[in-house]
Amino acid sequence: MIVVLKGGSTAEQVREISERLVEFGYQVNPIFGVEKTVIGAVGGSEHTKVDFIDQLKAYDSVEDVVLITKPYKFVAKEYNKGEKSRIDLGGGVIIGGDEVVMMAGPCTVESEEGLFKTAERVAAAGAKILRGGAYKPCTSPYSYQGMGTDGLKLLRAAADKYGLKVVTEVMHVRKVEEVAEYADILQIGTRNMQNYDLLTEVGRCRTAVMLKRGMTAKLEEWLLAAEYIAAGGNERIMLCERGIRTFEPYTRNTLDLSAIPALNSLSHLPVIVDPSQGTGRRELVAPMSKAAVAVGADGLIIEVHPNPDHAIKDGAQSITIETFEKLMPELGAIANAIGRNLVENIRRLPALG
Amino acid sequence: MIVVLKGGSTAEQVREISERLVEFGYQVNPIFGVEKTVIGAVGGSEHTKVDFIDQLKAYDSVEDVVLITKPYKFVAKEYNKGEKSRIDLGGGVIIGGDEVVMMAGPCTVESEEGLFKTAERVAAAGAKILRGGAYKPCTSPYSYQGMGTDGLKLLRAAADKYGLKVVTEVMHVRKVEEVAEYADILQIGTRNMQNYDLLTEVGRCRTAVMLKRGMTAKLEEWLLAAEYIAAGGNERIMLCERGIRTFEPYTRNTLDLSAIPALNSLSHLPVIVDPSQGTGRRELVAPMSKAAVAVGADGLIIEVHPNPDHAIKDGAQSITIETFEKLMPELGAIANAIGRNLVENIRRLPALG
Amino acid sequence: MIVVLKGGSTAEQVREISERLVEFGYQVNPIFGVEKTVIGAVGGSEHTKVDFIDQLKAYDSVEDVVLITKPYKFVAKEYNKGEKSRIDLGGGVIIGGDEVVMMAGPCTVESEEGLFKTAERVAAAGAKILRGGAYKPCTSPYSYQGMGTDGLKLLRAAADKYGLKVVTEVMHVRKVEEVAEYADILQIGTRNMQNYDLLTEVGRCRTAVMLKRGMTAKLEEWLLAAEYIAAGGNERIMLCERGIRTFEPYTRNTLDLSAIPALNSLSHLPVIVDPSQGTGRRELVAPMSKAAVAVGADGLIIEVHPNPDHAIKDGAQSITIETFEKLMPELGAIANAIGRNLVENIRRLPALG
Amino acid sequence: MIVVLKGGSTAEQVREISERLVEFGYQVNPIFGVEKTVIGAVGGSEHTKVDFIDQLKAYDSVEDVVLITKPYKFVAKEYNKGEKSRIDLGGGVIIGGDEVVMMAGPCTVESEEGLFKTAERVAAAGAKILRGGAYKPCTSPYSYQGMGTDGLKLLRAAADKYGLKVVTEVMHVRKVEEVAEYADILQIGTRNMQNYDLLTEVGRCRTAVMLKRGMTAKLEEWLLAAEYIAAGGNERIMLCERGIRTFEPYTRNTLDLSAIPALNSLSHLPVIVDPSQGTGRRELVAPMSKAAVAVGADGLIIEVHPNPDHAIKDGAQSITIETFEKLMPELGAIANAIGRNLVENIRRLPALG
Repeated sequence: MIVVLKGGSTAEQVREISERLVEFGYQVNPIFGVEKTVIGAVGGSEHTKVDFIDQLKAYDSVEDVVLITKPYKFVAKEYNKGEKSRIDLGGGVIIGGDEVVMMAGPCTVESEEGLFKTAERVAAAGAKILRGGAYKPCTSPYSYQGMGTDGLKLLRAAADKYGLKVVTEVMHVRKVEEVAEYADILQIGTRNMQNYDLLTEVGRCRTAVMLKRGMTAKLEEWLLAAEYIAAGGNERIMLCERGIRTFEPYTRNTLDLSAIPALNSLSHLPVIVDPSQGTGRRELVAPMSKAAVAVGADGLIIEVHPNPDHAIKDGAQSITIETFEKLMPELGAIANAIGRNLVENIRRLPALG
Repeated sequence: MIVVLKGGSTAEQVREISERLVEFGYQVNPIFGVEKTVIGAVGGSEHTKVDFIDQLKAYDSVEDVVLITKPYKFVAKEYNKGEKSRIDLGGGVIIGGDEVVMMAGPCTVESEEGLFKTAERVAAAGAKILRGGAYKPCTSPYSYQGMGTDGLKLLRAAADKYGLKVVTEVMHVRKVEEVAEYADILQIGTRNMQNYDLLTEVGRCRTAVMLKRGMTAKLEEWLLAAEYIAAGGNERIMLCERGIRTFEPYTRNTLDLSAIPALNSLSHLPVIVDPSQGTGRRELVAPMSKAAVAVGADGLIIEVHPNPDHAIKDGAQSITIETFEKLMPELGAIANAIGRNLVENIRRLPALG
Repeated sequence: MIVVLKGGSTAEQVREISERLVEFGYQVNPIFGVEKTVIGAVGGSEHTKVDFIDQLKAYDSVEDVVLITKPYKFVAKEYNKGEKSRIDLGGGVIIGGDEVVMMAGPCTVESEEGLFKTAERVAAAGAKILRGGAYKPCTSPYSYQGMGTDGLKLLRAAADKYGLKVVTEVMHVRKVEEVAEYADILQIGTRNMQNYDLLTEVGRCRTAVMLKRGMTAKLEEWLLAAEYIAAGGNERIMLCERGIRTFEPYTRNTLDLSAIPALNSLSHLPVIVDPSQGTGRRELVAPMSKAAVAVGADGLIIEVHPNPDHAIKDGAQSITIETFEKLMPELGAIANAIGRNLVENIRRLPALG
Repeated sequence: MIVVLKGGSTAEQVREISERLVEFGYQVNPIFGVEKTVIGAVGGSEHTKVDFIDQLKAYDSVEDVVLITKPYKFVAKEYNKGEKSRIDLGGGVIIGGDEVVMMAGPCTVESEEGLFKTAERVAAAGAKILRGGAYKPCTSPYSYQGMGTDGLKLLRAAADKYGLKVVTEVMHVRKVEEVAEYADILQIGTRNMQNYDLLTEVGRCRTAVMLKRGMTAKLEEWLLAAEYIAAGGNERIMLCERGIRTFEPYTRNTLDLSAIPALNSLSHLPVIVDPSQGTGRRELVAPMSKAAVAVGADGLIIEVHPNPDHAIKDGAQSITIETFEKLMPELGAIANAIGRNLVENIRRLPALG
């Protein structure tokens, strides 16, 4: 790390900081400039010393502390020897491999009939994972909060019938176990990205986790949230870019597609993109899905509803089943153009119906 | 509410939307313009109909839905007849009255000696409430996470000895009861503002709650989070502005002081300001504290440490006890200038030591 | 427009506002609700009445004014009957047609040799337009401000030699004429998006204009800035998304690709993407270029430098000529996947050298 | 400066960078760590070397470059020996002294009668400077753009009659001379903060300049914009905080009051606050004005209109003359509480009327 001292720091102050650094295992190398003194400090991996940085910054003589190693370890690219992680969900569904994995389904599980119809059709179109909310985080306490356990059961049944996996959100620490019983992927929503209580809890299970980006999370904070889960023992983590909050009112969020290649250079975790939440506008879902495949996403999660005009929630950003069916081969063509695949094994699905 | 239809909507579409509105209890009044049609819909209070709005927006023919009543009820200014709420913590400490209530103490409870020394001195200077973290939310899993129960006990003991109340953060749903046993105010931190699991849990107790603003929360979302707590039955809520995330790197956050008068016109809840978290820089705490008193805050919460250069956490934004002692009469003078008081009853404190 | 009156407005106030609306040519339709009154006002196109809206908002009785028509006219999609504009630059180069037009070159014109080498190679790879800064806007007054007229001459000469068009920035109102003499497209930079003096000036010429998005411009403000140019008589305008400012420090800006399909639904103007400025990081240029083509950009503008490590400016975001050559067929494949083309006519270029 | 090399950099690469640094006059001190190498480079003042930083960042082997001195010189606090600049406007009006200087007047000059009435009353209430727009920057080309020269004449006449100075915006490089003829302070608006053409032009005159913060300007960028003016020879500069753009829709901008003490620690330039533009809401002007005085602003600029409900522009954020008259003694009390003054010399004004 580099400790930059304020202009006019005394030799005494330089010695004080240097001694503190040595005490924490660093080798110290002060550089005395005309205006300022900086202390170069090299030593062990800094991710175990985050509090120490905070303490250094508190000295009156210290202007800044610059880290030169990353504060996370298990989720860093180097941890997996520079290779992307592959999360095997069974049944040939692998996140982080050559295939861009498609997740689709309604925002909220509403009815058996609608869910099964959606599952059947998205499976036939090439989706591998069924999405759907059983426990819903809602900005207002008066919004519909989801079907709960009944919703989980319906998701599992619909997925099993059509050869799909299940991804669904968990938002209560006391329900992690229940949701893990029905889901193949536990989704941590944007509002809970820094709910450390919940991160710790999912870190204790072995079910795969999809960690959505906080609305205002920097890449480093997001990776540190993932590190919580990994440090707890659960390394089956994928990240999901779902848009950040900006000043632009036209879209619900600003989908930050540059995060995908950026994360790929920092971390080995696979990255999913959510163009539905990421834009909040139905007509932007298809073009942003194409962009997400082109930029290198390992999967997409899309809200699909048989009748969006009558969806209980988020209908404005849901596309119809027909739109999804039309979109899939278009995404497949882009996946092929970048040397990946997306829909080639549609015909290998079990006979439906 | 106002439903704006897209240009070129058919009479059929206008009828479809109108019927849906009538079905939900609205009286409907369509206005046919040259370019567009809008439907004015009046009826009962809209906070119970949030999902319905979502459904309307999903119609292909609908361009926008504009609410004309607020989506919250218990925390709205009208609910308390336009008066500010007063939260009586006992012992003459009232949040929301004439007095600007000062909360001070270390970021994190570290040692008995330091905590008691701080409590004694801030009490003597006029603070009424002792702050200190026992359970700490940390961006990194490798940071110090607090003393836990032992920290709570120390806080209570130090506060009791010097006639103070206690505010401390709760971040685990399964520890709300424990923290409530020791604290007079349960703090919900910025990362948990939309942790509905936790909001629901504190809504069940009767201990006062201080709800910090999420880093990226709009005023309406913040009030809706407070509504979760109130709807659960706990109406003893104060809000705490602690800075929002912006593009400016100089400060840790951008302290949004305009939120205080804005909230005062929207809600009856008292509002506290945290200039320590809000700026992240020690030298900005005093001027921003003055501004916060001038703008009408009902209280301030300030990080004070006997030796900030050796604080375990957040030393860079902690001020010394001496700075706090010097600041208090300056804040008192500003409070007087706007017709409130802040330190006049210092001498009425119990003899110390 | 919809005028929402505050709760408790009197009949007198409703009449006052209604009369004002009638005075400005609106037909008025008040809706009296239980809590509030709203006035629906329909009439002529609102883009000529922007100040009137401002005046309405100033009434104490008015809570909000909601526009239901767009405030711009010449750049609105409807103005061109829903079709995208085609800007013909001559020599078969058309912006807004089937072809995704590639613009490439150094951030800043530095030397004849480097510029000609770059022009030759990017032309051979399929670029149609040479970019390069002769007048440079710099955050610091001590930065290199460009070669000026000499730079313009070099650009023109290099472009002519290799069959390219020229795009370059103009930032001084008194140099619009000079720059227009050498350039095929006048670039208005992000810092000048709301420099109305300059917008008015380029509105007077007939050279094509590329208007970059302001760092913090909403889509509507951007389109209104374009409207300044169009209202001045110059309708040959293309927009250029170059990233917006957000809280994320990893990238220089956050490239908002959702702006492309959003603009396509609001306006007939072609949209270009700048992945170099938009990310500030060389390694993100290729993936974001692919995403930009996939999302529907009409062109890309990329910083290419023969030796980025020795570029005077912005080397960190410039790619090498070799990287560009490798990228072009990859972009071509994606363009084909969405039914457009990008590099198929490489061989039709004049013999080089 | 500190140059951080990427992990795995070779000795060859370290030598290459070191030689480049030496070439630019730095003394070089490499520190070889386990994971990374950093090079400490000390030497002359870095504000003349901004482009060199850019070049270093472009090396493939360089991960980051950390500046340890500020990139500006004339506006830095050290340049004025740590003292705040005093800008003497004549007639006893000094910006940057003990007095908090009040600027007030209409957003836009509309009529002789209204302007004179406003000038008379705000002068009597203690304002020293008359504000008013003669050339108005407008988001829409269809908005009222101001009275131009006639407006300037009216401003001068009204100010002279009531013993006031004049501040007004200049937005055209070719009108700087004209505006300077009538105004005591040239205002550069938020949209033009990085209009270097205009900054250079006002740098050539000797009239005082008030540089408003760009909507999205970091403190450093703002100071660099001021440096443009100072480097041109005009050191009579004051800054004006007028709110930054954030995600919050309730206020027009987020007024960043922490910028005032922050600027005071970085620069010697006086700082003004604009609570009208900064909030966009009339009811927030008074509380935010109080906060601005408390935080240490050297002046305030407030939109005051005799009849805001009929103002041509920005009526929603204008306060009435009566509100201003009531506010002044309240601000005076706060100024006194922090040891400054604001209205004590009201009675010394010339007899009015």
